[in-house]
Amino acid sequence: MSAQDTQWIAVDWGTTHMRAWVFGPDGALIASLSSADGMGTLSPDQFEGALLALADPYLPEGRQTPVIACGMVGARQGWMEAPYAAVPCAPPSVRQAATPPTADPRLHIRILPGVSQASPADVMRGEETQIAGYLELNPGFDGVICLPGTHTKWAHVSAGEIVSFRTFMTGELFALLSQQSVLRHGIASGGWDDAAFMTAVEDAMARPHSLAADLFSIRAAGLLNDLPAASARSRLSGLLIGLELAGARPYWLGQRVALIGADALSRLYETALSAQATPAERGDGDETTLAGLTAAYKNLMEGPT
Amino acid sequence: MSAQDTQWIAVDWGTTHMRAWVFGPDGALIASLSSADGMGTLSPDQFEGALLALADPYLPEGRQTPVIACGMVGARQGWMEAPYAAVPCAPPSVRQAATPPTADPRLHIRILPGVSQASPADVMRGEETQIAGYLELNPGFDGVICLPGTHTKWAHVSAGEIVSFRTFMTGELFALLSQQSVLRHGIASGGWDDAAFMTAVEDAMARPHSLAADLFSIRAAGLLNDLPAASARSRLSGLLIGLELAGARPYWLGQRVALIGADALSRLYETALSAQATPAERGDGDETTLAGLTAAYKNLMEGPT
Repeated sequence: MSAQDTQWIAVDWGTTHMRAWVFGPDGALIASLSSADGMGTLSPDQFEGALLALADPYLPEGRQTPVIACGMVGARQGWMEAPYAAVPCAPPSVRQAATPPTADPRLHIRILPGVSQASPADVMRGEETQIAGYLELNPGFDGVICLPGTHTKWAHVSAGEIVSFRTFMTGELFALLSQQSVLRHGIASGGWDDAAFMTAVEDAMARPHSLAADLFSIRAAGLLNDLPAASARSRLSGLLIGLELAGARPYWLGQRVALIGADALSRLYETALSAQATPAERGDGDETTLAGLTAAYKNLMEGPT
Repeated sequence: MSAQDTQWIAVDWGTTHMRAWVFGPDGALIASLSSADGMGTLSPDQFEGALLALADPYLPEGRQTPVIACGMVGARQGWMEAPYAAVPCAPPSVRQAATPPTADPRLHIRILPGVSQASPADVMRGEETQIAGYLELNPGFDGVICLPGTHTKWAHVSAGEIVSFRTFMTGELFALLSQQSVLRHGIASGGWDDAAFMTAVEDAMARPHSLAADLFSIRAAGLLNDLPAASARSRLSGLLIGLELAGARPYWLGQRVALIGADALSRLYETALSAQATPAERGDGDETTLAGLTAAYKNLMEGPT
């Protein structure tokens, strides 16, 4: 297929990366593109250039190509702010998108809004599109969707709406503690110890108040008992995921739970939840993002913007 | 007083800094010295030079000057390892000190050991000397000593012995989260909000399992409600200190409590403990360190090494 076949472009534009998928007729994928031009490195006047740096060869001349984007690109410091929709609400529609003007006449940009919650204060940008995608792929889903990552989200979804959600800084805590704290001296960059992980999950769920002390004990066990660096890594992960599961208990207890995210991390959550007699179904991160953006595109095509 | 008057030198040698006090006859302070030659930046063969860079002008010729040091200088990666004493034990005596050889004949170094605990695994280096000093200054003290800092220690002290202790990574978590996490965007480097601090202490003590979510809510409240950056800083501090107090409850509940450390940080702990109907007495960090090192020096002079 040639550039003249491009029907629309899906964009997942986060803080550190931008990914784009170029679609032709009948949903055929023409190209998958990505760059390190994340929202965090761009000023508002640089977004169009960053998009064209990837997409230019795929833009037909003489007409506008719809570009539908989700993620931090819609933050206040992004390309153009797409104000949050407040829960309870369905994942925002493309009708609520922000439409930044472009210099290039071949582009028509829609940036999907994120979702906010007043109390407890919380926000998401991008995950609402994955939730929309999961609902597309699993019609009638009613339950809880967990999206593990740097800032893991737990969302209660019912009747097509996000009822409530909470964000846990688990992934960022893991990165900071494993790479920048005193624990880094005894923590491997790879390797795994299943038993150390599960024990730590149980410890943190039973005694979440001991977290800051249990963290230091990882270092002490390295000094005193030569705790292997892979076990230390697994224990750190388990303590943080266990703390999260203790805090998210009102979300998962007795609910239908779906995990959407990277495979390795999702499997850790699946294992930890399984020990709590909570099976979880799985969704693929990219697949749900694309399903959500595709639903927005179809919605756009169905009627007047 | 001249260099010939120097009787001994007290050294507090931590990871990032080294401080030394030169004493003359009758405990007269001749000089207070400090440098950024912390243990973390030195290889074993560089410690003597780092000490001489400060102390050389104060070393009498023709005799050995005792230098008594505590802290990370005695770690495995320090000048020479001073193996831990294991609880329950009195703060280690100068008789247990490591004595690294020196090229300069004017020096005689003693490095005081730290203290370890097998279960839960824990270690301290330096705080044991402050505990010894507090016991010197408060004879017969029986209760709990809390030493707030990067790695806050809680030690149960009875009949002159450290019975048990636990280390909480509270200070390091605060530094990482306020300076390197997503929260840094909304957190002031200074300023304070007493009410936000106390509410956060109560929140974390009541719901320690929600920590990772309550942390992200600080960011969300900045985005949604323009939470002032000084309030965000105070709330972060309160959440982490509240989590620690929840974990350290077996230490402070119903006990005589002493706080040893920097004034501003100790006052936060004092305020938070006070709300739990737990008054705390206060000890000065430098004063207790010097009292501990001075007791070691007197002990050294009293008998054969």
